[in-house]
Amino acid sequence: MKKRIVLLNPPELVRRSNWRDRFETKVSQWLTPWDGEEPIDIGFIGVPLSKTSISVSAASMTPNALRELFPTVTTYSIDYDVDLQELRARDLGDIQMHPTDLFRCHDNIEQALTNVYQALPGLLPIIAGGDHSITYPSVKAFKRRFAGKVGIVQIDAHMDVRNLEDGGPTNGTPIRSLLESGTVEGRHIAQIGIHSFANSKSYREYALSQGITQFTARQVAREGIEPLIHQAMEIAGNGTEAVYVTVDMDVLDQAFGPGVPAMIPAGMTSWQLLDAVYILGQNPKVKGFDVVCIDPLQDPRRATVRTALHVILTFLAGVMTRKH
Amino acid sequence: MKKRIVLLNPPELVRRSNWRDRFETKVSQWLTPWDGEEPIDIGFIGVPLSKTSISVSAASMTPNALRELFPTVTTYSIDYDVDLQELRARDLGDIQMHPTDLFRCHDNIEQALTNVYQALPGLLPIIAGGDHSITYPSVKAFKRRFAGKVGIVQIDAHMDVRNLEDGGPTNGTPIRSLLESGTVEGRHIAQIGIHSFANSKSYREYALSQGITQFTARQVAREGIEPLIHQAMEIAGNGTEAVYVTVDMDVLDQAFGPGVPAMIPAGMTSWQLLDAVYILGQNPKVKGFDVVCIDPLQDPRRATVRTALHVILTFLAGVMTRKH
Amino acid sequence: MKKRIVLLNPPELVRRSNWRDRFETKVSQWLTPWDGEEPIDIGFIGVPLSKTSISVSAASMTPNALRELFPTVTTYSIDYDVDLQELRARDLGDIQMHPTDLFRCHDNIEQALTNVYQALPGLLPIIAGGDHSITYPSVKAFKRRFAGKVGIVQIDAHMDVRNLEDGGPTNGTPIRSLLESGTVEGRHIAQIGIHSFANSKSYREYALSQGITQFTARQVAREGIEPLIHQAMEIAGNGTEAVYVTVDMDVLDQAFGPGVPAMIPAGMTSWQLLDAVYILGQNPKVKGFDVVCIDPLQDPRRATVRTALHVILTFLAGVMTRKH
Amino acid sequence: MKKRIVLLNPPELVRRSNWRDRFETKVSQWLTPWDGEEPIDIGFIGVPLSKTSISVSAASMTPNALRELFPTVTTYSIDYDVDLQELRARDLGDIQMHPTDLFRCHDNIEQALTNVYQALPGLLPIIAGGDHSITYPSVKAFKRRFAGKVGIVQIDAHMDVRNLEDGGPTNGTPIRSLLESGTVEGRHIAQIGIHSFANSKSYREYALSQGITQFTARQVAREGIEPLIHQAMEIAGNGTEAVYVTVDMDVLDQAFGPGVPAMIPAGMTSWQLLDAVYILGQNPKVKGFDVVCIDPLQDPRRATVRTALHVILTFLAGVMTRKH
Amino acid sequence: MKKRIVLLNPPELVRRSNWRDRFETKVSQWLTPWDGEEPIDIGFIGVPLSKTSISVSAASMTPNALRELFPTVTTYSIDYDVDLQELRARDLGDIQMHPTDLFRCHDNIEQALTNVYQALPGLLPIIAGGDHSITYPSVKAFKRRFAGKVGIVQIDAHMDVRNLEDGGPTNGTPIRSLLESGTVEGRHIAQIGIHSFANSKSYREYALSQGITQFTARQVAREGIEPLIHQAMEIAGNGTEAVYVTVDMDVLDQAFGPGVPAMIPAGMTSWQLLDAVYILGQNPKVKGFDVVCIDPLQDPRRATVRTALHVILTFLAGVMTRKH
Amino acid sequence: MKKRIVLLNPPELVRRSNWRDRFETKVSQWLTPWDGEEPIDIGFIGVPLSKTSISVSAASMTPNALRELFPTVTTYSIDYDVDLQELRARDLGDIQMHPTDLFRCHDNIEQALTNVYQALPGLLPIIAGGDHSITYPSVKAFKRRFAGKVGIVQIDAHMDVRNLEDGGPTNGTPIRSLLESGTVEGRHIAQIGIHSFANSKSYREYALSQGITQFTARQVAREGIEPLIHQAMEIAGNGTEAVYVTVDMDVLDQAFGPGVPAMIPAGMTSWQLLDAVYILGQNPKVKGFDVVCIDPLQDPRRATVRTALHVILTFLAGVMTRKH
Ligand SMILES: [Ca+2]
Ligand SMILES: [Ca+2]
Ligand SMILES: [Ca+2]
Ligand SMILES: [Ca+2]
Ligand SMILES: [Ca+2]
Ligand SMILES: [Ca+2]
Ligand SMILES: [Ca+2]
Ligand SMILES: [Ca+2]
Ligand SMILES: [Ca+2]
Ligand SMILES: [Ca+2]
Ligand SMILES: [Ca+2]
Ligand SMILES: [Ca+2]
Repeated sequence: MKKRIVLLNPPELVRRSNWRDRFETKVSQWLTPWDGEEPIDIGFIGVPLSKTSISVSAASMTPNALRELFPTVTTYSIDYDVDLQELRARDLGDIQMHPTDLFRCHDNIEQALTNVYQALPGLLPIIAGGDHSITYPSVKAFKRRFAGKVGIVQIDAHMDVRNLEDGGPTNGTPIRSLLESGTVEGRHIAQIGIHSFANSKSYREYALSQGITQFTARQVAREGIEPLIHQAMEIAGNGTEAVYVTVDMDVLDQAFGPGVPAMIPAGMTSWQLLDAVYILGQNPKVKGFDVVCIDPLQDPRRATVRTALHVILTFLAGVMTRKH
Repeated sequence: MKKRIVLLNPPELVRRSNWRDRFETKVSQWLTPWDGEEPIDIGFIGVPLSKTSISVSAASMTPNALRELFPTVTTYSIDYDVDLQELRARDLGDIQMHPTDLFRCHDNIEQALTNVYQALPGLLPIIAGGDHSITYPSVKAFKRRFAGKVGIVQIDAHMDVRNLEDGGPTNGTPIRSLLESGTVEGRHIAQIGIHSFANSKSYREYALSQGITQFTARQVAREGIEPLIHQAMEIAGNGTEAVYVTVDMDVLDQAFGPGVPAMIPAGMTSWQLLDAVYILGQNPKVKGFDVVCIDPLQDPRRATVRTALHVILTFLAGVMTRKH
Repeated sequence: MKKRIVLLNPPELVRRSNWRDRFETKVSQWLTPWDGEEPIDIGFIGVPLSKTSISVSAASMTPNALRELFPTVTTYSIDYDVDLQELRARDLGDIQMHPTDLFRCHDNIEQALTNVYQALPGLLPIIAGGDHSITYPSVKAFKRRFAGKVGIVQIDAHMDVRNLEDGGPTNGTPIRSLLESGTVEGRHIAQIGIHSFANSKSYREYALSQGITQFTARQVAREGIEPLIHQAMEIAGNGTEAVYVTVDMDVLDQAFGPGVPAMIPAGMTSWQLLDAVYILGQNPKVKGFDVVCIDPLQDPRRATVRTALHVILTFLAGVMTRKH
Repeated sequence: MKKRIVLLNPPELVRRSNWRDRFETKVSQWLTPWDGEEPIDIGFIGVPLSKTSISVSAASMTPNALRELFPTVTTYSIDYDVDLQELRARDLGDIQMHPTDLFRCHDNIEQALTNVYQALPGLLPIIAGGDHSITYPSVKAFKRRFAGKVGIVQIDAHMDVRNLEDGGPTNGTPIRSLLESGTVEGRHIAQIGIHSFANSKSYREYALSQGITQFTARQVAREGIEPLIHQAMEIAGNGTEAVYVTVDMDVLDQAFGPGVPAMIPAGMTSWQLLDAVYILGQNPKVKGFDVVCIDPLQDPRRATVRTALHVILTFLAGVMTRKH
Repeated sequence: MKKRIVLLNPPELVRRSNWRDRFETKVSQWLTPWDGEEPIDIGFIGVPLSKTSISVSAASMTPNALRELFPTVTTYSIDYDVDLQELRARDLGDIQMHPTDLFRCHDNIEQALTNVYQALPGLLPIIAGGDHSITYPSVKAFKRRFAGKVGIVQIDAHMDVRNLEDGGPTNGTPIRSLLESGTVEGRHIAQIGIHSFANSKSYREYALSQGITQFTARQVAREGIEPLIHQAMEIAGNGTEAVYVTVDMDVLDQAFGPGVPAMIPAGMTSWQLLDAVYILGQNPKVKGFDVVCIDPLQDPRRATVRTALHVILTFLAGVMTRKH
Repeated sequence: MKKRIVLLNPPELVRRSNWRDRFETKVSQWLTPWDGEEPIDIGFIGVPLSKTSISVSAASMTPNALRELFPTVTTYSIDYDVDLQELRARDLGDIQMHPTDLFRCHDNIEQALTNVYQALPGLLPIIAGGDHSITYPSVKAFKRRFAGKVGIVQIDAHMDVRNLEDGGPTNGTPIRSLLESGTVEGRHIAQIGIHSFANSKSYREYALSQGITQFTARQVAREGIEPLIHQAMEIAGNGTEAVYVTVDMDVLDQAFGPGVPAMIPAGMTSWQLLDAVYILGQNPKVKGFDVVCIDPLQDPRRATVRTALHVILTFLAGVMTRKH
């Protein structure tokens, strides 16, 4: 029986490729729209919200921008010698947004994801923002799946712990909201890639006081991503039942992520980000994943959208190594 | 005594030019920030709101984008042989917005403009959006200045009479809101430049049923702007005490207005738009003016922002011909 | 029973819009993929070929670029007060191309269209190129539908009568090929918008010697499009059973058509082109239509693709006035 | 014997096309580098100077940008049925500039052109700027060719009569310099296309006091270019031995000339500019011609450079109608 | 006696610089067009073919795009303290292409290069594509120069071993064609930089079965380019008489090579690529070199073309260290 | 008493942000225009000159472009845990330039900076070019502050020791001018990042003969920036009283510095440059600092301007560690 998930619409954009090489599978041939019946393990979900961004952002266009690139990438990783085709994955579509009631948008995200998790209990969601504000309702829905606590590994140039009075629930506040709502505890949160001249001393002190662990951008540059990501995973996984990974693409150096609203020099390289998500993908405790804060309108030749797609695929390459 | 107008901030951007030709006055030397004391006739007011736009828009950047161009234009119109320097004009700054509470943004616009009109009773406001949703709160504040009715001349490719249930108060609804709230009657509204394949038959019927007069884009192309603008002014002025002019820059052909979210071919020329606002400026009944719906991020070399600045200056050239 | 038309693939791209105003119909809600069963009058057909272009061109991307814009336009023309929803129209998909065998591409076009016309005998095809080379195989297939002769109205900056020895069948040769193959006679061909410094004296003489009628770009600018298009229709329709209209978007002034490989100043305006196709659409003898030579990769904010979409919609607005 | 003209270098850029249609001649096959021997009537001369521009400008790149387009245009005008191949024309190369001594640049221009006129006494020069400052030294050299007075037809949005104290000899001063140096009298100068909000009242008064005749941009829009250009030619030709035509591309509406440093809305159309130079080309008294103030770095797809090339070719089409 | 090489045209574009510093030599002063007589060691040859590319590509514009940059680089490497002026190098021009017969284009490449090698037996060719399909005919001509076998070092994100039935000889097939035609054996081919999600598992297996050695992109990132390039050279040189180096610029991370049709994140850095070609240049067995797959139309400020030019110059710096 | 410094104008552009998070300080709230009275330690000074650049450059727009970004960065460095707010810093404005007399521009720079140093004796100047030619007059003024010798650390892809006869004082000559004028001795100059194919052998020899120490771009890539910058500082500081640091942004790899006129592949990374200036900032002998040669018009999304701003802020983070 076909399931119709409330508040979830079919994908706004479907892109195929009429020319095919018979010995090659494109992501567009594998990550097709879900028919409401097929049993699946992985679900791609678009969350086209970016009016909650403090700076001007067209991040709401990201889910479709990712879909446009599906026919340009294959399912095979030569680096890890895995073919993603073995995973049962589908495009579940987009969560319903409202043009002006942004609080309702957040409610829709929480409710739609709750609906998804009820309909597809074992699903590993791949959530494509949107701006970072979506992570608050997303993790709230995620939390309900588990009896125990949940942790967060956040790869981001920013701490996202702004006060909620000055601007409401924006892309600068998801972590603050999760802390204040008691959804996640600071000691279960690790942030990687926090950048100079992009955050304030007050919020650094607040984050530390809450028990959050932070690794700066320069630490990544000098110590390498691998030891830090392992530490981060340990923090997020210690005493928790599940870990949610959230990737804010502005963690990248602007050379590698030129299409984010808050672009910044001297950030992470693409290799560092891919290595990070591969390691996270390997860990069976990681049961939720989002990628946020790309502005396709400002992204030269979709460079950052493309990188985000490789972030997703590489995370899934890691997932394939898990013992099921 | 310096006035501080509640909900109105000083201009976010001030741009001067250190090189000067002593025999020439740039707009940046004339339209300077208001000091809270100077008696003025004309006030430039920024309304940096565009999250209320249905499509992605960075129209909130328009007020600053206009200010950046102030040093590139002079105050002298050779076509009409008037020098705007004779007008007492200042940049009043920007209305306070909220990052996520869009309804509060609309309330702020209405309240801030009400405050402005109380502080400066004779002011002719030049309001720079923002998207077209701002015209609803703006005209509500405008209406309070007058005992009698007010009319509207709207230059736009769109009717802006969408239902309010599907998306709330967006850039597609200001006229609908003004009708439903009883602020303006349909018979006092003239719309010029309405475009094919950009509106629906249902709303055409609704607008006619409300008594709105509409001139299509092709009518402008074939009949010329002048007879139509005179008819429009007659409609808006007939039985009203004051007329509010609202210019949605997407009324231009995309060749002339390439930087609007809803760009469209086969629209108005720049000359037609300038001639329209000059004629409207001449009419002493016109006591309010806004220009909306430019996306500076998508505007090649600020072409559309520049045209909007010429729209403002040409309107004021018309104003100079009035008998004070 | 579902029909599967040989050499015709389903549309490579489908774009919906999850947000809807209930009183408005977007083209994406009307011009949906054909299910192989629905009876239809109008069929949109993509011909993604541009390697046959003399200059570098990505015109093969045009069909998908048009589809991406389907949710941005409505079905209602206020200028002519018609709603295209009354037409039974579907997106038939794309003709199969070959990456390196360009002669086979031309054969595929002729064969696929022949298949379409057999499957859907009454169809009015709306063919989206691709470069202008596609018009030769397209008209060959078109010709077979009729017992009598066919005529051509070509709106183009170029004559497209180059010799076939120097470069084979390119976007510079479709008319030459049609003449030499005896598919169409010169006296049944009218060309409008032919441009200075874009053609040679030799070919001017050749065209005249073949009986082709040419109206230059400056003639359009000075005499207006209407009398010329009526003359053109008379030439193409005189003694023929059907007329094929081919629109090369480079006929536009580069201000109005900035996204064509052979962009040129001092061409046609968008209004002139739309008025032309409306008039042609009204004429029941016009039974084939193509639009070619846009390079979406070089088209700022898809301006020219958008104009082409309005060209198609306005042509269909004309079609709606026909007596069926 | 090969002539080597002092201060004149060979063209910096030569662009051919290896693919050719045997029945078509491209400008690149006709306007080839001069070999120092061939007898010629028309000489293309680059003046790569733009540091003298008040605003930032890369106009020095224009001569090469024009040359890059030579293979994209043919020599045949269908509008006037003339083939420019009948004119003996060559590319004479570029005048030597100095990186920092801008006064020397101006001296070089005057001297190099004087050298050219001595070497090739009957030459009709087609001078490609550079910014408008070059017109002062150019007209000084031009003046020496004639016993009598010379007149100027200037097609420009600006008057170019700024005082010389505030900024020295810039693109804002060539006409002032010509007046003050006694090279040309105001009563022999006609300016067409002067724009509102781009000039000052003081300079308007100065220009009128000097006897200059000015036609505004709006006059062109409303009265048409033809009557005005005939009046302008009459003014410039009345009592003079020769007329110099100078075309500042910023006279175009920014839709038609998007690549000029001082782009402006509501200017001239491409058709108006082409019609103007054709008429001027027909007049045998016109013996000098320059085109200035394009910034190829800011010119989308070289639209304005391309228009300038059509301006040159159309002027020469006019020249072909002269009785030699 | 001047040699005229059949199927080879003179360079389409020649770019000089009229301003010179007398103590500096630009590449444009050294790599000048060949006069058909000068004895030379190094020849730059353009192969302007990209219609054989699977994805849209303007790689045919690369040879001219490289030439435009010749005046922006000098001949001196401070890193290796060599001045390329000591090499006798010339620009031999471009191989003749056909607009529509792509198979003939490939034949022309093979024949023209054969002609070149006959005319200039000791020449080290620097071949500028074009897309990667050109490497098949190029290596076929190369192979004929030697009695023994030849090897290939390919620096590329892709394996280029697609089957030839689905699309003919494209940029996805040159290695497959070389294998199937027996021109080169798999055990003499080393590929460096092969990328995940850009190739298929089937072709990985095919390549290994043919004996090809592959180093992945991540291997380069983690092990460094030097050990891998030495291994690659050993493989290609072992049992062969000569080695052909082919550089597909899409091997670069999209941050370093933003102007390739198949841009990809997490590729090679510019330093890694330059170090690779320097080492290859040093090896006297390397007797052929090409660089392919740049799309200048999509290349921001010619970044990738510029890198390709540095690739060529750095390879030649390596060549200078050889014992002649 | 307010000081008015001769030849120094107030900042041309002031940019605030009306939305604020109360727990965060933006650079725009700290680096405000100087009021002429406040005691300050750090002064930002714009030098809007780029007509002295050999290649086309809009570097004169850099000071304003930096100011536009002030509201996008905070004052807090998490990497070094310092808050720049503790430094007393102000924006002193821009030095007066002349549109055509470039020699006077250089004189103005020297004189204005001399005036600044007299008015504010302890000031650490942060000078924002403009092109590199400004460093000659800047260091001349700097030298006068000290009884002893001064040294230079130059981070640049170029040596800037061109002869002064061929082009006068350009961005290619500041070091040559300083040497020839006896302002600085070669043995006190260290250059880091000198690039292959961007300089000549003659000038390499000249520089060495003058005692200049040069570290090449590849040395930085292979040895790391830290040991080299320490060596450079030792050279510049050995026997001198003060060191002037000059950063030419073209030292960056074009991936990290895409907006410089002389962009180049295989340069420095952003991390290397930031680490370099942090170390230099720590050294109390460093008493002057400039950053030059960005072209904001060619800079995608202001990437290079943004990096330059981080260069300034990171240098100041280093300064904060000094013992005052
Ligand atoms: Ca974030
Ligand atoms: Ca972030
Ligand atoms: Ca509107
Ligand atoms: Ca509108
Ligand atoms: Ca055509
Ligand atoms: Ca054409
Ligand atoms: Ca001028
Ligand atoms: Ca001008
Ligand atoms: Ca390849
Ligand atoms: Ca490749
Ligand atoms: Ca330098
Ligand atoms: Ca430099």
